[in-house]
Amino acid sequence: MKNWEKYIRKVEPYVPGEQPENTDVVKLNTNENPYPPSPKAYEAARDFDFDRLRLYPDPEAGVLTEEIARRYNMSSDRIFVGVGSDDVISMCFMTFFNSDKPVLFPDISYSFYSVWAELHRVKYEQVSLDENFNIIPESFYRENGGIIFPNPNAPTALYMELEKVEDIIRHNQDSIVIIDEAYIDFGGKSAIEFVDKYDNVLVVQTFSKSRSMAGIRIGYAFGSPALIRALNDVKFSFNSYTMNAYSLVCGSAAMADEEYFNECVAKIIKTRENAKSELTRLGFEFPDSKANFIFAAHRSVPAAYLFEELKKRGIYVRYFNKPRIDNYLRISVGTDDQMKKLFYALEEIIDGCNSGLKA
Amino acid sequence: MKNWEKYIRKVEPYVPGEQPENTDVVKLNTNENPYPPSPKAYEAARDFDFDRLRLYPDPEAGVLTEEIARRYNMSSDRIFVGVGSDDVISMCFMTFFNSDKPVLFPDISYSFYSVWAELHRVKYEQVSLDENFNIIPESFYRENGGIIFPNPNAPTALYMELEKVEDIIRHNQDSIVIIDEAYIDFGGKSAIEFVDKYDNVLVVQTFSKSRSMAGIRIGYAFGSPALIRALNDVKFSFNSYTMNAYSLVCGSAAMADEEYFNECVAKIIKTRENAKSELTRLGFEFPDSKANFIFAAHRSVPAAYLFEELKKRGIYVRYFNKPRIDNYLRISVGTDDQMKKLFYALEEIIDGCNSGLKA
Repeated sequence: MKNWEKYIRKVEPYVPGEQPENTDVVKLNTNENPYPPSPKAYEAARDFDFDRLRLYPDPEAGVLTEEIARRYNMSSDRIFVGVGSDDVISMCFMTFFNSDKPVLFPDISYSFYSVWAELHRVKYEQVSLDENFNIIPESFYRENGGIIFPNPNAPTALYMELEKVEDIIRHNQDSIVIIDEAYIDFGGKSAIEFVDKYDNVLVVQTFSKSRSMAGIRIGYAFGSPALIRALNDVKFSFNSYTMNAYSLVCGSAAMADEEYFNECVAKIIKTRENAKSELTRLGFEFPDSKANFIFAAHRSVPAAYLFEELKKRGIYVRYFNKPRIDNYLRISVGTDDQMKKLFYALEEIIDGCNSGLKA
Repeated sequence: MKNWEKYIRKVEPYVPGEQPENTDVVKLNTNENPYPPSPKAYEAARDFDFDRLRLYPDPEAGVLTEEIARRYNMSSDRIFVGVGSDDVISMCFMTFFNSDKPVLFPDISYSFYSVWAELHRVKYEQVSLDENFNIIPESFYRENGGIIFPNPNAPTALYMELEKVEDIIRHNQDSIVIIDEAYIDFGGKSAIEFVDKYDNVLVVQTFSKSRSMAGIRIGYAFGSPALIRALNDVKFSFNSYTMNAYSLVCGSAAMADEEYFNECVAKIIKTRENAKSELTRLGFEFPDSKANFIFAAHRSVPAAYLFEELKKRGIYVRYFNKPRIDNYLRISVGTDDQMKKLFYALEEIIDGCNSGLKA
């Protein structure tokens, strides 16, 4: 071993959901939106002055921040933007989680929280969900160096009512509390109102799900001006120009197109509710989803088997081989047509198993 | 003070060069390229399938990595890409600089090196340049936890011959040596050949200067497959999707257009060489530049004064109020027309001073 090899950081690489080259695949594995981005964003892209790419982008991302401010009726000094909500949350860990007490988050949750904690050398403890995967607010009533949880939670899709969210905040006035709302637009109610009420709260959202723009990499956070200033100071201190000029322009146009946004979200919710009936009919059980995916376990056929069989049929869903959730599939809500293909394939696979059992 | 305020990370925010809204300004303050991006990149942008923005981008940035590989005649497992070279270098600090010994870099150099060292809690020592701002290779012949320097150096624009670069590498086989070549294409010779020869060397380049695409945010590093794998592992472990789909497509097309690249670079070099004569005529002294900027001090008129007077005339250059360099202006090389305006304004300001002195 060479000397410098000793000092290479050891990490556990994340394995993202597969991005198959084959476009015939029914892709229900990464919670992307099945509908294209807003036509208004497309117009902005078409009109984008390409030559300005020779210049550095606006480091303050003004055009985007102001559009988000307008849309959410908030002053722009309460808004921070980053390269996807992963970037925003990682920046939050770096900026706010510097105490010796452990940061708390649910034991079944977005897998990157522990990664960022380790990356930024932050102590953390994972708080147990109840047996139905619900977050127990009381489990967060103890000394900590910060709190983060998704609402709806991932990969369970379970939404927590705002009163409970506020309970957690109220009991943690000495910590920064981050609510990761990547999936909030699919039927939940945002905690954004608490940003005005409590100066220790951050609410994080993203363009990757409800806004159909996972490929553009934009996430944003709402918080008190003091918190937003701290985030910007840290960001500016080490990489001032993260968001490219094109993303700023297209993102801003997409944010302004509320009508298209509402249409897409309504379609996805409708498809999801129908999927719940179909999955129940097929023998699945699942926590009630308020996200754009369903976290489902079949009563008799193991998830790992379903996952592989679906893949053979060109249908990609997500499977996590981890304790307590290793019999679940995370199924993104696609178009009605994609979902029909899924149900048909599931029926075939499950029938095959059942007749195999009888034989 | 609230309890959580105590745990907010303290940083010194970087103040980037001004990005004036007024497009009439002669902008020679951030070393951008005065020429637009490659027309081939524009075509790729025009043909970009906007709808695919609903999907996550390829986390491996394949299309771009492969084009860079082709252009530099290297295998793609020797190439890492990131969101600007700032992102690439910050990732290098995080990945490779984890020993207890100090990382070494020049005392007058890119200001972000110390910022990243502090960010990632890495010890560092700044090594003195000689009295003419040259890097002294021997000053790097001692125990260290890693080495980084720009070639040409910033903000001096001074290029170090490759034999000296290799001397530094040869004396530091126990460390990772990073050569930051943001400005290499303007007349220097790249250390890329050492990537094959030494497995502890990384060479970092960017799309922001010679490739006219500061607004797209792409940087890249060449290194041995082991180093590139380590960088990718760290990157994937905490943010898999950093480079957006549009940047990948346009960046790849720009990289392929070698003819346009060579034309632009030749024009800038010609303008720079002419600027050297003009600045000498006007009474400036400067280290010989092999970059797209000139770091110049006037024999009688203070830089701070010139900076302010130029700004009044709508001409932006960069001024650093720091020890040893506080009488220098960093002047980006613009178009011939922009430079003419600069010389005219400088002449006016300097004449005004001289006649003031005589009166």
